[in-house]
Amino acid sequence: MTLTGRRIGVIGGTGHLGEALARRWAAAGLDVLIGSRDPARAAETAGALTKDTGRPVGSGSNREVAASADLVVVTVPYTAQEATLTGIRAALQGKVVLDTTVPLVPPKVMRVQLPPEGAAALRAQRLLGEGIRVISGFHNVAAHRLAAGQEACDVLVFGDDKGAREAGVELARAAGMRGLHGGALANSAATEALTSVLIFMNRLYGVDGAGIHITGTLKEPGAS
Amino acid sequence: MTLTGRRIGVIGGTGHLGEALARRWAAAGLDVLIGSRDPARAAETAGALTKDTGRPVGSGSNREVAASADLVVVTVPYTAQEATLTGIRAALQGKVVLDTTVPLVPPKVMRVQLPPEGAAALRAQRLLGEGIRVISGFHNVAAHRLAAGQEACDVLVFGDDKGAREAGVELARAAGMRGLHGGALANSAATEALTSVLIFMNRLYGVDGAGIHITGTLKEPGAS
Repeated sequence: MTLTGRRIGVIGGTGHLGEALARRWAAAGLDVLIGSRDPARAAETAGALTKDTGRPVGSGSNREVAASADLVVVTVPYTAQEATLTGIRAALQGKVVLDTTVPLVPPKVMRVQLPPEGAAALRAQRLLGEGIRVISGFHNVAAHRLAAGQEACDVLVFGDDKGAREAGVELARAAGMRGLHGGALANSAATEALTSVLIFMNRLYGVDGAGIHITGTLKEPGAS
Repeated sequence: MTLTGRRIGVIGGTGHLGEALARRWAAAGLDVLIGSRDPARAAETAGALTKDTGRPVGSGSNREVAASADLVVVTVPYTAQEATLTGIRAALQGKVVLDTTVPLVPPKVMRVQLPPEGAAALRAQRLLGEGIRVISGFHNVAAHRLAAGQEACDVLVFGDDKGAREAGVELARAAGMRGLHGGALANSAATEALTSVLIFMNRLYGVDGAGIHITGTLKEPGAS
């Protein structure tokens, strides 16, 4: 799977993470569409990204972008996950959806509170149904560091379909980070939970966006 | 809290992780006791550690060591967690217990399968009751690398009691790794789950013991 020629639709693309990722991807030469509940705001963000990156960035409502895109990235808060996914589900059949949702439950955002399904990614798969291949990732990315071009953490990507997961790994690389396969969609619980830990550490240790790096010498998959 | 003068009891101390940690702690000058279901095996391991580190290491049954130690570290497989903890519970009242249990459920050890409580550490707290302060950590440590003096990953320590958690952080440092506070005991789910992800990555990327490192510049807690 290669990202060339595929339209990347960013749902919730006017948010901090969505805009930061879209900016990186547009700058890397990918075709990006910004989706929002408010198409006017989406157009505004798309205009700014087009100007900044020199790459034409499209826009529309979340539903329009979900319908037009080949690969859909969902970057909305946990509280908006269910309404957003059910609202665009019909447009997603047969597609790959990368869900970035982190199950933060205010006010205790420094405390791990995984959903009954075990992970927000598993919740996304349940909400979307089996005709849509859900992958997940980018849980530990600090949006403000990404926007400033400073993010250097690893991005672990989860999914039960290896080919779909590879698209997520390529998206991480296109955004300038090391993308790594993290296994089954259920494994998304690890980095989703880690987000609360990192928020705790940011507070305790005064870190400006703690992230994770996988230690050890990694070979190419399949290399002996 | 300082570790000096406190006896560290390692329950399941003849296993890979227990012995590797005990070796590091004895080499760092701490008072260590090796516990095992089989006191003869515990004595054998303690004898080898005494010889190798030049520091006298004691031994006994798990129950004897739990009773003698000031700080108890539990390093047993998930399947043995319940029987081990209920067997030594009476000897642990008022003490701090560091649980290292990772909820791996064979044969699918590369798949995150957190227990109904949300984390093995929360299960330990439920089994031990409120009179015992449970902390958790060392979930992502590769025992064979630790034993070979090569382990360089960060150790995140979880617990609802900050003072108890500090003991775990000091134990990580005494073992030659960077110990970090990771927040509430419930947050243990993050690194427990991450263990399955790391096993998956070891397999896929041919890594000899992948671990994690927290990125970003960490200040001392409380520093402005």
